Order: sequence, then structure tokens, then C-alpha cells
Amino acid sequence: MQFPLSPRNRKSPFYEAQIRHGMTHFSIYNHMVLPVSFGNLDAEYEALMERVSLWDVGAERQVEVVGPDALTLIQYVSARDMSDCRIGRVRYAPLCDNDGIMLNDPMILKLAEDRYWISIADSDVLFWCKGIALAKGYDCKIFEPDVSPLAVQGPRAEDTVADYLGEWVRDIPFFGFEDIEHDGIPMLVCRSGWSGQGGFELFLQDGSRGLELWDAVWKAGEKYGIHPGAPTSLERIESGLFSYRGDCGGSATPLEVGLEKYLSLDRQDDFIGKEALLAEKERGSSRRLVKVLLSGDRMQFSSEHPWPAFNSEGQKVGEVRMASWSPLHDSNLALALVSTSVVGGSFFTETPEGEKLEATHLSMFPE
Amino acid sequence: MQFPLSPRNRKSPFYEAQIRHGMTHFSIYNHMVLPVSFGNLDAEYEALMERVSLWDVGAERQVEVVGPDALTLIQYVSARDMSDCRIGRVRYAPLCDNDGIMLNDPMILKLAEDRYWISIADSDVLFWCKGIALAKGYDCKIFEPDVSPLAVQGPRAEDTVADYLGEWVRDIPFFGFEDIEHDGIPMLVCRSGWSGQGGFELFLQDGSRGLELWDAVWKAGEKYGIHPGAPTSLERIESGLFSYRGDCGGSATPLEVGLEKYLSLDRQDDFIGKEALLAEKERGSSRRLVKVLLSGDRMQFSSEHPWPAFNSEGQKVGEVRMASWSPLHDSNLALALVSTSVVGGSFFTETPEGEKLEATHLSMFPE
Repeated sequence: MQFPLSPRNRKSPFYEAQIRHGMTHFSIYNHMVLPVSFGNLDAEYEALMERVSLWDVGAERQVEVVGPDALTLIQYVSARDMSDCRIGRVRYAPLCDNDGIMLNDPMILKLAEDRYWISIADSDVLFWCKGIALAKGYDCKIFEPDVSPLAVQGPRAEDTVADYLGEWVRDIPFFGFEDIEHDGIPMLVCRSGWSGQGGFELFLQDGSRGLELWDAVWKAGEKYGIHPGAPTSLERIESGLFSYRGDCGGSATPLEVGLEKYLSLDRQDDFIGKEALLAEKERGSSRRLVKVLLSGDRMQFSSEHPWPAFNSEGQKVGEVRMASWSPLHDSNLALALVSTSVVGGSFFTETPEGEKLEATHLSMFPE
Repeated sequence: MQFPLSPRNRKSPFYEAQIRHGMTHFSIYNHMVLPVSFGNLDAEYEALMERVSLWDVGAERQVEVVGPDALTLIQYVSARDMSDCRIGRVRYAPLCDNDGIMLNDPMILKLAEDRYWISIADSDVLFWCKGIALAKGYDCKIFEPDVSPLAVQGPRAEDTVADYLGEWVRDIPFFGFEDIEHDGIPMLVCRSGWSGQGGFELFLQDGSRGLELWDAVWKAGEKYGIHPGAPTSLERIESGLFSYRGDCGGSATPLEVGLEKYLSLDRQDDFIGKEALLAEKERGSSRRLVKVLLSGDRMQFSSEHPWPAFNSEGQKVGEVRMASWSPLHDSNLALALVSTSVVGGSFFTETPEGEKLEATHLSMFPE
């Protein structure tokens, strides 16, 4: 089946470089084209694990909040305390609704005492924040700035970015950033990225310079074996990185999907979802996201649809969100969102082909 | 390029029927799979214009607003007055932000004095409404109900739906609906749909009955030559139907895109965007969406990227959002969002292949 691109599907400033490098697979993320593969997942995985991989993650949009009440808004929407975050630092901070349902799991960058970027996963956080600020009468401006992240990931990512921007980048701590201009290109250099292999995200602040930035990083990375790539499903699961929407369909609480350590439930100030999350913590979550080993022959990456999960009595207990062969575990591996009644033990699932497989608990996910 | 479907991409209750009928092209809309074509656009156009076409528009999600303050919320977010809308009736009602920028162009269905469905185009209106209601402390519940529309469009759509549900459906007026149960399937039968050929949308209220509903309508439509289809670009342009995001990238005011008649700017009560829209009306919009004839050889439907628009001095004056050969006009046709300085006259555009074409004003769009 084909996906005909249309003007409804916005492209990032790096888009033409993706075509030039032979992008073969894409997805839609925040109404934009998100590259997924360049035709050889094994080579892309290897480059990420052993060398350096360059990703157009321009679809990771920013919601800028600026003004006297910026922190007030941020504190109200973020389930994680941002009040003691320093300028130049980032926190992974789930946003919830009043029922504790997670609306997004962004990174929040603190640019100034009165200026933040919410760097979002795939949902219109701009609407949430703007609606709340408007209705509350907060004195802050909320908008989508001209900012497009480019991710440089893998063990040689630091060498690549140091060759491009200078040795000083080696001193940037994890989830720290510097706002710079290099060869006239304004960008924020942040040690972050959706892989466990280390690296940077370069938040380009002028969409007209996208191809220049891509080409400059590419050139710096050539001697390190740079490869075009994209967020890599298998690696992110091995590295324990949560995927909003992918792992829970966009309707779970952070407690259900193992993000408790990113919540500040003991905060004194109020935030949206606090009461619901505290109540859930008190009574225990009714379901959890888990990583399981799956029986059966070596399978292809399978995740077009969630598969139903059943207990040994045949009752539905949740769903398998994705499944894949894992070289690391020498087994089929799956992520499943299931009733706590089967967490820690085993359960069953059925593939679209009707094959019944047994799932054996490996660990909570993403912990 | 391929789009690998994943659990991030939710499917409608009619999805399996799309596969069975040979869906060849799809898009993503409200984070869901939206069928686009079954491989023969000409046959699909003909079925819509001459017979009856069946569309899985389950991606058109509903935002339900219910409770004592439901109308208060609706009136505050809707730029169109809904206060005198009757139960069982629908209004097309742009939603704007404080700057008058349109956030969505839904139909709003009034189900009861205290209950509405906002039937949305492609953006997370749920976040907007929930955030505002929460911050304002409105006493209403806002959520996405289990509702999936199935559209039956074309000159024989009424015969098809009458054969399926009874002759009484012929009495449903345009933008009127009835809430019924038929053979145990709960649905709201509404005379609406995103084509100019007439027909109904059946708002299925039980996702587990999707294939039953599809098959029942299909069976009723067989003698009228029913065909699987989808919202049809060429037809909707000929019929003057606006496409949020497609026609303006999701960042225009309703005045810029010809929707003034759906605004209630003379309302006494306040609504979001009122001040900005009144000011824009006072000073005149700086750009407008127009329908133009394009010079050049007969072209394929072209809309992967917007094309730049220039005036005769070579200055950029906007963009061509889509272009296609139109049998109706025996010419290439385009929709363009351009500076009012060139509206009514001619301007130029350049295709990705570098061909320069002249655009001649045909009409405002969608008026």
C-alpha cells in the first residue's frame, strides 16, 4: 500500500537530503514526514551501535513558552517538577490530563528563567498549553518556533559533532545544551536523542539552513562512517526507551508505562493529573507495560496491529504492542501492556496468522 | 517510498474491509489510517459522481462535550454561534485561537441541550477543549467517544441508505441527523459528507460492529453500483469544499480561506479569536485562498509539496497548495494561498521540475 504525500504532510528543512540519501520508509509524526529507514535496517542498526547515525527528527516539534508566567504554565502542565531546573538543562517530563492519562512525554528545555521549549512526541501539545494559558489568563506567549532538531547518535557522534563545532562540545553534560551560532547557522546543541548510544541533537533555529546543516554534519562524520538513519525500534527497546503512542496508543498513565521516576508526586504545588496519579499510586496500577520473551520461530518485526493478550483461562488481559526477533536475547521479544494479574508470570498471544505464542516475563519496561 | 504501518497508526473499525476491498493508498489523519484510493481514481470519481461510493472516514474523530456547561464551552471555542442550533442538527463551525488562526474546521452536532459532538478535521481538538474546560473550571466532561463515521456519498447514496435503514431516511434534511439502532447496531444517521454529491454519514457507536455495518451498507448498495472510495481531491475542489491543513497548512484564519459565512462575528457573547477576526475583517485579509487556471500541458495531480507563487516582479506572494488537470474546466486547475495584491489578476508559479506556469484567477475558494 502506498502513502501519497500531500501538502497536508509537512516536510522538515532536512527533507531534500533524505531523498538524496535514498530514504525508503517514512512515517507521519506531528503531521510531518518522519524518515524511518533508508532500505537496510541491519546497516542502520550497525551504524548506530558502532559508528554514527544522522537522523532527520525535525518532526519533533517545539512548543515555546515565554513570558512572566512561563514557569507557572510549565509547572501546571508538567507532572515533573521543573522549578529547580537550571538554565541550559533538559528534563524528560510527562504531561497528563486530569485523569492522569499521559498526553505527551516531552523533554522540556529551560532556555531562560522565563523561556522554555517543550520538545514533543506525537500529539498537539501546542493546543493543550495554549488553551490552558488562555483560559487561565497566564501572561506568556505560546507558539511553535522555527526549530527543527537533527539527531547525531552513536559512539562516534561526539567525535563527529566535535569535529564540526569544536572540542568544547565534549564538555556538554547529558541533557545539557548550549545555544550557539556556527558559520552563521543558529542552533542549540543538546546532548540528547532517542537512543541509548549517546550523541547530540542539534536544534536548528533557521529552517532555511537545513540542508547546509545536514551536509556540514555529514561531512564531519564521514571519517567516522556516518550513515543516514532514524529512530530505531529494536535499539530503543533494548535501551529501554518508551514510545508514546507506540507503546500504549496514547491512552495510559505514566505509572502504567513505567515512568514513575519522572514524576514529582511529592510536589507541594498543584499540577494537572496530580490527584489521579496519587490515587493510582495508592491503589496500584491495574495494568503495566512489560518486556517479554515470546515463543515461536524467529519472527520479522511485527507491529502493524497490536495482538490480543490472554491469560491461561483465555480471558483477555491486554495487548502485545510490538514483537521482533532480538539478537541480544536470542529470542523473540515483545512489549505488552497487560493486566497486573499476569505481570511477572506468563500469558499468551495470538498472531494475525492465528499462531498462539507464550509470553514469559523478562522485565518491566522501560525500567 | 513505503510507509510501514505500526501500532502508532490506529485503524478504524472498518479497516479489515478496506484491505478486503483492495485499498491501495492511504494517509494518516488524526493519528489514524485514512483510506485514499483503491487503485483506480477514475473509477472512484465516476462512482461518486454517478452512483454511490462508500468511505471509511473513521479517522474523523468525535470530541464529545457533555454536562451543564457543555454549551458554554462550545460557544467559547466555536467562532460560529451554536446557541440557536436545534437538537438533531449540525453546523460547520471553525475553531480559532486567540489570533484568529483556525485550529480546526469541524462539524458540530447537537445531540441534546447539554451534549455535543465536535466532528473534527486533522488536529487534536480534544486537547484544546479539555485544556480550556479544565482551566475555566467548566462543569462538563470532554472525551473521545467510541464513534466512527462511515460515509455513503453520491447520487444513489440516499437509495442505498433507504434500502438499508428504511424510507424514513429520505426525510432527514441536510445537516440533520437521527440517533437510531438498526439490527442491534447503534448509529447516528446524518445527512452530511465531504463531497458535493449528497449522501449520509453513519456515525457508528460501537467499534466492534464496524465490519457488520460496512457489509450491510455494501449489500444494500450493490444494486446501485456501490464502489469503495474515499474523500476525492478533484471532486471536493470542483464542489468548493475546504481542506484544513491541505489548503493552508493549518495556519490561516477563516477569513483568509473564504469561510466568513460560517463565522458569527456579530455575536454579543465572547468567543476565542473574536477580537482578532473582527480586526482582520476591518483592515482586510492580507492573503486569500483562490482557485486559478494554470497554463501548461495537462498535468498529473501534483501536491507533494506546495509550489512557490510569484508576482510579475518575481516577488514571492504565496504558494500553490495543489494542482491538477480538471476535466470540468478543460484546463489545469490549482488552489493557491496568495497575497491579496495578486488576487483577481494573475501570478506565476514554478513546478519542482523548474517549469514556469501562469496562474489566472478563476474564483475565490471555497466560495
